[in-house]
Amino acid sequence: MSRPAHRRPEYHKINKDLFVLTYGALVAQLCKDYEKDEDVNQYLDKMGYGIGTRLVEDFLARSCVGRCHSYSEIIDIIAQVAFKMYLGITPSVTCNNSSKNEFSLILDKNPLVEFVEELPAGRSSLCYCNLLCGIIRGALEMVHLAADVTFLQDRLKGDSVTEIGITFLKKQDEKKYRRKK
Amino acid sequence: MSRPAHRRPEYHKINKDLFVLTYGALVAQLCKDYEKDEDVNQYLDKMGYGIGTRLVEDFLARSCVGRCHSYSEIIDIIAQVAFKMYLGITPSVTCNNSSKNEFSLILDKNPLVEFVEELPAGRSSLCYCNLLCGIIRGALEMVHLAADVTFLQDRLKGDSVTEIGITFLKKQDEKKYRRKK
Repeated sequence: MSRPAHRRPEYHKINKDLFVLTYGALVAQLCKDYEKDEDVNQYLDKMGYGIGTRLVEDFLARSCVGRCHSYSEIIDIIAQVAFKMYLGITPSVTCNNSSKNEFSLILDKNPLVEFVEELPAGRSSLCYCNLLCGIIRGALEMVHLAADVTFLQDRLKGDSVTEIGITFLKKQDEKKYRRKK
Repeated sequence: MSRPAHRRPEYHKINKDLFVLTYGALVAQLCKDYEKDEDVNQYLDKMGYGIGTRLVEDFLARSCVGRCHSYSEIIDIIAQVAFKMYLGITPSVTCNNSSKNEFSLILDKNPLVEFVEELPAGRSSLCYCNLLCGIIRGALEMVHLAADVTFLQDRLKGDSVTEIGITFLKKQDEKKYRRKK
């Protein structure tokens, strides 16, 4: 039996230039709307969060990834499956601490900035791709994983690579709750 | 000799859900910014125009389409090559007048509204996908073809199909200029 059309991989593929340019228009609009870079960054993160919560279900259905048993496994899925599927790239992964809950995704190239040569004038604190952080945060939250996700390095700011830091948060509330019982 | 990576078709492909949801965030933001539907529509068209002027060069390079000798040929390229490449769909084409400068693209399905069930409350005149009209208009203008591009029907407004009307404009100024000589 053949798969229904909406489940076939090729049906889900489009040319990315249209997305990249549309994203640029969105960022430009937010820069018009908000004077402070921090507000634009926060708004992009918030928008991304909403997108992540909606993307994750379809991602899990189509990627057929199994249950993960460690943060390392989750990071590998994000880098090797999710980034590949949605942006066509595979970032490299580093683990940044001994308790193995802090990681970095290193992007040698970033398709989202292909048409962007530099940050707009007077916008030196803009995290142009902050939507990505929000998406990762939103998607993780939907599988009950709280995380901080932020840009640690950005080529648009003169860094040699683009680096997204992901810190999985300890379930403080759950611990407190257990202690109280 | 193999093609450089950025010219390979697979490098340009991404999953479309990310684009569709990001586009939704853009429209939602414009609805916050502008009270009148007409202003949102105009803004989406203007943004699209800018995107179209940037997309067309890459489109011509990658699609390898030859010189067109009629408006019909151009419409076929838009429907069968451009829509396929950028949105993964192939609209059907109708010619709407005897002077063969008015056409319609009929979209049985529209990937841009896959996550949209209905227009937001109080937004009955919103042309949700008006970015597309602007993109077509911008791309045509870059190959020296002036055109009006508007939605004639829209499933989101209860129509049975989505229909984009494209009217190639006569080069009035050129005619006048010739007469004067």
